[in-house]
Amino acid sequence: MRPTLLFATLAALAPALTAQAPAIHTLLPVPASVAMNGARFPLDAGLTVAITGFRDGRLERAVGRALTRLEGRITVPLTRTYSADRAARLVINVARAGYPIPDVDEDESYTLDVSGEQAALTAPTVVGAIRGLETLLQLQAADGRGYFLQGTRIKDAPRFKWRGLLEDVGRHFEPVEQIKRTLDGMAMVKLNVFHWHLSEDQGFRVESRRYPRLHEMGSDGLYYTQAQIRDIVSYATDRGIRVVPEFDVPGHSTAWLVGYPELASVPGPFSISRTWGVLPDVMNPIKESTYRFLDGFIAEMALLFPDRYWHIGGDEVNPQQWKASPTIQVYMKAHGIKNEDAMQVAFNRRLFGILKAHGKEPVGWDEILQPDLPKAAVIQSWRGVNYLTEAAKQGRRAILSAPYYLDHIKLASEHYLADPLPANTDLTPAQQALILGGEACMWSEYVTPEIIESRIWPRLGAVAERFWSPREVNDVNDMYRRLEVTSRRLTEFGLTHESQTDAMIRRFAAGDDAALFSGLLEYARPRGFGLGPGANATQFTPLTRLMHAARTDPWNGWRMNDRARRAAGGDTAAVRGLREDFARMAQFRAGLEGVRDRIPMANDGMPVAGALLDLSRIGMQALEYVTRNATPAPVWRTTADSTLKAIEGKTFGQLRPIGAEAVRALVNAVPK
Amino acid sequence: MRPTLLFATLAALAPALTAQAPAIHTLLPVPASVAMNGARFPLDAGLTVAITGFRDGRLERAVGRALTRLEGRITVPLTRTYSADRAARLVINVARAGYPIPDVDEDESYTLDVSGEQAALTAPTVVGAIRGLETLLQLQAADGRGYFLQGTRIKDAPRFKWRGLLEDVGRHFEPVEQIKRTLDGMAMVKLNVFHWHLSEDQGFRVESRRYPRLHEMGSDGLYYTQAQIRDIVSYATDRGIRVVPEFDVPGHSTAWLVGYPELASVPGPFSISRTWGVLPDVMNPIKESTYRFLDGFIAEMALLFPDRYWHIGGDEVNPQQWKASPTIQVYMKAHGIKNEDAMQVAFNRRLFGILKAHGKEPVGWDEILQPDLPKAAVIQSWRGVNYLTEAAKQGRRAILSAPYYLDHIKLASEHYLADPLPANTDLTPAQQALILGGEACMWSEYVTPEIIESRIWPRLGAVAERFWSPREVNDVNDMYRRLEVTSRRLTEFGLTHESQTDAMIRRFAAGDDAALFSGLLEYARPRGFGLGPGANATQFTPLTRLMHAARTDPWNGWRMNDRARRAAGGDTAAVRGLREDFARMAQFRAGLEGVRDRIPMANDGMPVAGALLDLSRIGMQALEYVTRNATPAPVWRTTADSTLKAIEGKTFGQLRPIGAEAVRALVNAVPK
Repeated sequence: MRPTLLFATLAALAPALTAQAPAIHTLLPVPASVAMNGARFPLDAGLTVAITGFRDGRLERAVGRALTRLEGRITVPLTRTYSADRAARLVINVARAGYPIPDVDEDESYTLDVSGEQAALTAPTVVGAIRGLETLLQLQAADGRGYFLQGTRIKDAPRFKWRGLLEDVGRHFEPVEQIKRTLDGMAMVKLNVFHWHLSEDQGFRVESRRYPRLHEMGSDGLYYTQAQIRDIVSYATDRGIRVVPEFDVPGHSTAWLVGYPELASVPGPFSISRTWGVLPDVMNPIKESTYRFLDGFIAEMALLFPDRYWHIGGDEVNPQQWKASPTIQVYMKAHGIKNEDAMQVAFNRRLFGILKAHGKEPVGWDEILQPDLPKAAVIQSWRGVNYLTEAAKQGRRAILSAPYYLDHIKLASEHYLADPLPANTDLTPAQQALILGGEACMWSEYVTPEIIESRIWPRLGAVAERFWSPREVNDVNDMYRRLEVTSRRLTEFGLTHESQTDAMIRRFAAGDDAALFSGLLEYARPRGFGLGPGANATQFTPLTRLMHAARTDPWNGWRMNDRARRAAGGDTAAVRGLREDFARMAQFRAGLEGVRDRIPMANDGMPVAGALLDLSRIGMQALEYVTRNATPAPVWRTTADSTLKAIEGKTFGQLRPIGAEAVRALVNAVPK
Repeated sequence: MRPTLLFATLAALAPALTAQAPAIHTLLPVPASVAMNGARFPLDAGLTVAITGFRDGRLERAVGRALTRLEGRITVPLTRTYSADRAARLVINVARAGYPIPDVDEDESYTLDVSGEQAALTAPTVVGAIRGLETLLQLQAADGRGYFLQGTRIKDAPRFKWRGLLEDVGRHFEPVEQIKRTLDGMAMVKLNVFHWHLSEDQGFRVESRRYPRLHEMGSDGLYYTQAQIRDIVSYATDRGIRVVPEFDVPGHSTAWLVGYPELASVPGPFSISRTWGVLPDVMNPIKESTYRFLDGFIAEMALLFPDRYWHIGGDEVNPQQWKASPTIQVYMKAHGIKNEDAMQVAFNRRLFGILKAHGKEPVGWDEILQPDLPKAAVIQSWRGVNYLTEAAKQGRRAILSAPYYLDHIKLASEHYLADPLPANTDLTPAQQALILGGEACMWSEYVTPEIIESRIWPRLGAVAERFWSPREVNDVNDMYRRLEVTSRRLTEFGLTHESQTDAMIRRFAAGDDAALFSGLLEYARPRGFGLGPGANATQFTPLTRLMHAARTDPWNGWRMNDRARRAAGGDTAAVRGLREDFARMAQFRAGLEGVRDRIPMANDGMPVAGALLDLSRIGMQALEYVTRNATPAPVWRTTADSTLKAIEGKTFGQLRPIGAEAVRALVNAVPK
């Protein structure tokens, strides 16, 4: 590493270079330690690159991808050959390979020093360098003179070692390209676990040569071939991402039973479920053949998934069939198994033994946390944070998902502020060390390949920062500022979250009509597994309506919050901006009415149009009181408050109006 | 088919149903015969579907795809089981399978009768039904009461039997998904030949097990596996599209020679070419081993590509190496071959014999049209229409591509008005019958997977109509009206032509800044294989600049033409629209100057900004004269004319301003 003195000298020698360099960065996640130094490292065809220490194919490919992405931004081809010249402008120095396949204990740290003359990335492992290359790309900025890296000194390492995303491909299938784009995006925000939920009541998604009826009869033809699995695992490995497969047992297993009904607790026959929820079908835990099957299956799959963890599911096991089965009840009595929860523990104990024989450690959902559960299992908390702390107090390793359900369609800020280990935790340091990290979850009842990326991104970036950055990094406004830049950067991989709304709206509305639908609406979480009153959604329900086109946590919501804050402080540009926002919101209903005779989808927007009108009216009034520093009659506040309460947190045909939070802030700022 | 009388009766009984039905259709291509009857066939969950005649897997899959697309528009799930009930609301009746693999002589005709009660599609073959299903989907419309099919009676069949698109995957590779989206789009506009240009100096793109160094050393790892080829051919077959492979020989073959230098006319070694143009490398036409290699290669590939045509390329054969080779010159003299053109004929004669042995008929570029060329070959005219007529006059079959080069970046209207057999043709009826049709060509020097779809679509739709519809269908304005709707429909397959500009601009400009770049600029054809003065593009040059984000033939150009026409006729809304257009054009330069300090890409727009300002000024003045019916001093016209001439047909840093045509029309309408 270069001495600090040299940087200071270079900066002093080259004041012209630093004149326009921004002082603030757009890094996401924020590194453990970062000091911007104002230098400007120009990016152009003269960039020379050297790998000076350890090198292997994975490192060279990672450097190659980083250069290709840089090329796309600076629009000149860069050299494809890398020297070992320490005087090169970009120098990458790695000490060793690290684990041959990504491991939960991998050292992911790195340091990055960027001066006006040289960018130096140093890492103990290839994965550390992969993380550092992403940071380096996030330092890229532009001004009138061209492209450059912002000067900085960074020392970085993750706060948690397990930072994941679950993607459910059981309920709705996702093609290989979608998975690869997800992995690219994950690498950009330094996530390191792809938790692949591969089997569900609605579909079994992996080719099994040993038990071919699993995919042949359980998938509607929508499954990954073994070649595709290998391709994806290797794609993830190249990005320092572990792939943890989940084959959910003994519940959520209807799709297995279609081809192999002998695994079930009742005679069958079975068919792929088209509806959601907790189904009755559960594997038979007392037949030896069940375990022989699982042993054969895991033996086959263990060759496809090299990670040492294996997710057994274990959630939402419906006890009904076990209760109703005389043979299972007799077995339980004979073996002193006192209830169905204990029966699942017995099932898990057998399963853990099989996994161990194949070199795998189990992970399971928090329902498996029962008395006498073997210590081996990692507990994934989804029903509440309390299961996380409970697991740790029992001396078990645990990961947190409860606050990070992306399909619950919360704001990025809500996910962001949920900390796996808050400052006031009552866990001892030893117990805290058992909290490996967390995972965001993307369950797929209501996403198709067209929609899923806009439900994952950009909010996943906020979760990723929570898992990587120090606990003290928690300024919501600054997070959104960086997340907006990150969101655009993510489109580099072809991710569709930024373009999906327009693309879908264009299908039912043209030109000027389409503009009407943009930016005012937010997708809300579907309730009760329905799609509006009386409509019961299934796996076949088309997800192509206005609510499906709407974004989650749209930028305008955050921007209005920001404007409301600034308007209350007297910022006239913010006041002007809010007036324009309110004017557009007020016009929405009339706009819809103008197009209803030719666009049936306009009807989807009618329920929320009234809420937008109310928000616009109250917001405009509040803004007047605030700017004129006038105090309204108390009845105004009472009425405004009750109208707002009828909107806040409510959904209108699966849509929410933007602006409720901003209007509430304005109302609160009105002089009393 | 239902009797006409019944339709009339139904229409009379249900006047309410027809009240709002549009009288004009949005079909593209326009059918051979179409009569809209004003009926409204409602689309909802009550839709029942019957296949009443012949049925096979291909037909069922085609019907299934059509229903899935309908579901996405009407947003309710449709039944997935098909009855044979003639009283079903949608009845599909097919007489026979037709050719087992798509054939140039396939009967693609169909009839479609849509009343308020029933939609009946009748076709002699499955491919005919596939064409008719696309027409049916284009009849889908919407109003305040919901979704419906427009009532109609259609009898349809193509004008030409060979209606293709060439996609060059040699110079820039395209992934499987891109090819599949292209095939989907082609099927929508009733094209039936995918001409796959699979080998080039810059890349050999097919896995060969017999000669593995072809793809291993000639592709940078970017090739289609044999499984992928089979998958794509079967995907095309399902859509009634023939796949004609092109392996260009003896020129444009550098990528073959990297792994097999013994095929070359000079010793080698060879490397994949990174630059464009006519390279010196040509196969050796006098070695028996060359023909043994081609025989072995074609034997292997013939199993992958079932079509009976095989494209040999044959274009741009550089004679230099043959001229310089003593052994080749000796051979030519010994065999009475008088020049290099004749040498190529001798090569082709051997090649045609090999193809015949493998059941294939040759197609070749028009350079192969030399004295003594065997009659077997179909001539593809690219250098000029004259080669098409010349081939026909020699009694040869021919297809036309010269006016349909999509990479020449012309307006859709220019392609549209070029007719393979214009009314004034001097060909005899027998000679006319030899004109099989035409192909649009998408050469890939300047397209990446991100860009290619916006260069193909929507303009290819205009070419498709030229190949399918009667010669008399040639109203440019009506074509653009329907093409705009078609362009939106095409996004149903995930095609990116509508979203690409915004997606790319978002990479270098955020929010309001991004809006500045939209809609005013048109991508222009790169000249001299360069990317602006002094820049020599290669296969590695990033295509991510402002010109690459710009659309070809953007809608605003056509819309301004339309407004200019209507403004000249006194339409005040058109005048108002033009004033807004001109105002935006005038602000562009100031807008760019406002963002240049943070967006380097703004500099790409500076050259064209001046042209936009000039057009805006002249247009605004002309509009004033036209609306006030005032006659300017003659010097105004002279000056306006010379300024316009400096803009018309010119490009400014690979960008063209929109509006030149509209402003010219306005200037012409100014009173003299």
